Amino acid sequence: MTEIPLKIFLEESELPRQWHNLKAEMKNKPELFKSPKDLSDVPPEALEGLFCKELVEQEYNLTDKYIDIPDGVREFYKTFRPSPLIRARFLEKELDTPAKIYYKFEGTNTSGSHKLNSAAPQVYYAKQQGLTSLTTETGAGQWGTALAMACAFYGMPLTVYMVKVSSEQKPYRKAVIETYGAKLVASPSETTEIGRKILRENPGTGGSLGCAISEAIEAAMKTEGCRYVLGSVLNHVVLHQSIIGLETYKACEKYDIHPDIVIGCAGGGSNLGGLISPFMADKINGKLNARFIAVEPSSCPSLTRGKWAYDFGDTGKTTPLMRMYTLGSSFIPSPSHSGGLRYHGMSPIVSQLYHDGLMEAQSYDQTKVFDAAILFARSEGTLPAPESSHAIRAAINEAIKCKETGEEKTILFGLTGTGYFDMSAYIAYNNQSMSDYIPTDADLQAGFSSLVF
Amino acid sequence: MTEIPLKIFLEESELPRQWHNLKAEMKNKPELFKSPKDLSDVPPEALEGLFCKELVEQEYNLTDKYIDIPDGVREFYKTFRPSPLIRARFLEKELDTPAKIYYKFEGTNTSGSHKLNSAAPQVYYAKQQGLTSLTTETGAGQWGTALAMACAFYGMPLTVYMVKVSSEQKPYRKAVIETYGAKLVASPSETTEIGRKILRENPGTGGSLGCAISEAIEAAMKTEGCRYVLGSVLNHVVLHQSIIGLETYKACEKYDIHPDIVIGCAGGGSNLGGLISPFMADKINGKLNARFIAVEPSSCPSLTRGKWAYDFGDTGKTTPLMRMYTLGSSFIPSPSHSGGLRYHGMSPIVSQLYHDGLMEAQSYDQTKVFDAAILFARSEGTLPAPESSHAIRAAINEAIKCKETGEEKTILFGLTGTGYFDMSAYIAYNNQSMSDYIPTDADLQAGFSSLVF
Repeated sequence: MTEIPLKIFLEESELPRQWHNLKAEMKNKPELFKSPKDLSDVPPEALEGLFCKELVEQEYNLTDKYIDIPDGVREFYKTFRPSPLIRARFLEKELDTPAKIYYKFEGTNTSGSHKLNSAAPQVYYAKQQGLTSLTTETGAGQWGTALAMACAFYGMPLTVYMVKVSSEQKPYRKAVIETYGAKLVASPSETTEIGRKILRENPGTGGSLGCAISEAIEAAMKTEGCRYVLGSVLNHVVLHQSIIGLETYKACEKYDIHPDIVIGCAGGGSNLGGLISPFMADKINGKLNARFIAVEPSSCPSLTRGKWAYDFGDTGKTTPLMRMYTLGSSFIPSPSHSGGLRYHGMSPIVSQLYHDGLMEAQSYDQTKVFDAAILFARSEGTLPAPESSHAIRAAINEAIKCKETGEEKTILFGLTGTGYFDMSAYIAYNNQSMSDYIPTDADLQAGFSSLVF
Repeated sequence: MTEIPLKIFLEESELPRQWHNLKAEMKNKPELFKSPKDLSDVPPEALEGLFCKELVEQEYNLTDKYIDIPDGVREFYKTFRPSPLIRARFLEKELDTPAKIYYKFEGTNTSGSHKLNSAAPQVYYAKQQGLTSLTTETGAGQWGTALAMACAFYGMPLTVYMVKVSSEQKPYRKAVIETYGAKLVASPSETTEIGRKILRENPGTGGSLGCAISEAIEAAMKTEGCRYVLGSVLNHVVLHQSIIGLETYKACEKYDIHPDIVIGCAGGGSNLGGLISPFMADKINGKLNARFIAVEPSSCPSLTRGKWAYDFGDTGKTTPLMRMYTLGSSFIPSPSHSGGLRYHGMSPIVSQLYHDGLMEAQSYDQTKVFDAAILFARSEGTLPAPESSHAIRAAINEAIKCKETGEEKTILFGLTGTGYFDMSAYIAYNNQSMSDYIPTDADLQAGFSSLVF
């Protein structure tokens, strides 16, 4: 066999032509949207005023294992994919571990994360449907940036409702989004009814993700030819993110790599769901005996401390219910530097897999996560995003265990992105002013109070 | 022939094993260091107290066409190289041009620029020589970041003297440098004699690159086992940057691409010198009839409006003289958003090629450069560094000419890096608060007054 390069790049011709629909492989399917009134099924048609038609179809598709990637999406994918699968040889050396560590690196595009994998098809389908504008919200900013890039590429007007305090704390994120031509509105704003109401009630508020979602939904519903798009949690987003796992799987086949442990950070769960997709299918089908680990911040522990329940997707309780692991839609996570992981719930697909015992979950304090991030940056070169560093932390811990036991396990993790626009976290770490936020049981009980079990 | 992929990645096994020493190909050699006293040759030994021995040898080597890249450097190169050669198909479409545009993209590593190509060997050789620490200066921050990364990789303590005003305006750059473990000193500082002197004379000063160089040199000279390293201008830096051109040349051969025009932005000239290296050798040897264009900011026009003269490398006039195109070492360029191009002189190699008529030079106002940057970002996806965008501007202009004449020229340019840590420029552009700075003839005369012709 040929020697494995440090960075494995598939050929452009090997870029997958279909996404992998993990729902179709699962024995216990994730439940689809339920009505808050009586837990009855919400028919797909009911969602087409809010979401693009094709995305709703993908959301509800429980049977087709593979779904074609349109040529117009593959064309855009080629500007930043295939992404590299990298052997963390220098990290291994630093840890003096017999483990082999590989990471799939999704941060080579300007948005700096995997979010572009779903932004591309979402904007493409909107364009195909003849829609004339889109709205979304962004907190940490990765999704807003990715969607602005995709909208610039396909020529689609976009309004991004950015949590006000984020837009002030992250002027660079705001600048990138505007550079790609999107209109950025600091939320809450005077442009929507809900925004005006919140501002009347809390004149000085810095906003929240829940509020930004509500404003983006209201704007989409009130504007002709406009739809709302979302960057995580939902089934169709996990579907698009399967491109990560499919490329990784192909690279592993090509170079005879057999992961014993697959690790991903988990906020809404789309990156993790995408990375594990084809590997998990093998596990379900008895062809692979690997461990799968979801890693979340201890400040927002939806899998490790949440409840398996029916819950709203947003703080404003305007969406249908989803069955998932959740801290409750009224749970407000403490501020942390991993804004992309501050979501109360977890993708129904990932939740179902976890519920069925097909996955494990771990949570880490952010200072421990940053210890790992620094070690990774200095040995491997790339400065990781705070979110991605949760996966690094878990991978390092597994590699250290291998050192203790002498096992030569193969560890695969997803490096979802880079921290270039989010350096305030590193500044806090370097200044030793970073602290950990762990919710008390009482904090959690408050969030659980409104759940439907 | 196989179809050309959008992004051409060479195999890891195709990573060059030698750098290309363009000096050895030139009929008129660049002049080596001269004494400010009497223009006599400065012997290499005289520089070994300041620079690493191996680098001085490379600086003076006028005869060997190829110089081996040590295995320990290739190992690090593999973490971020080969870099992609990308067809700008979407920019071409946007411009509706018959021209084929390719760009070699050096921004895929965390430092965000080509600077890492020279940082790697400079630190490696220092380690081999048994040195125990390094100093450098940084203005815009790209070089400081790259060197901090290389020092983290090889385990070498580093002190970076960062122009004070830059360290304040670019907290993210400062944070990245510190994250990789380097010590950052805002210059002028109390840590050196020259720093204390400047602070006494100008208590409120924000510093300058000239001052930071002087502090870094003083610190290196006074510390046992310490040397000073520089990220541009010098011959050995151009040598290391030839890796850009060698990879590009190999990719062009592999896919039968024949550039008619080769374009690079030029500050100190190392990226440009590196990109053109093997192509220029073909031109010198009569095997290639391409145009070569150096692109500089109109605020700091060393080739287009400078003088061919002997001049100091630093504002403090502490270095030997170099024969080059220069605006005079006392010329202080107006503030601009392309900090990496704010240098009074130009690499002796590039200067000599320009003087011999082997290259052209163009200069552009920064607002025109940013028009091009935005067009590029929105069509190609990647957000370019302000510096790199000078090359984009020139490439777009050549592509527009092709549209007018109907010529299907092949245009190759160097995209040296990304603008992720330098978004203040884009903020100014988006706010329409960006202006142009063009020195008057009187401004230039003042700088020329101390030159030796």
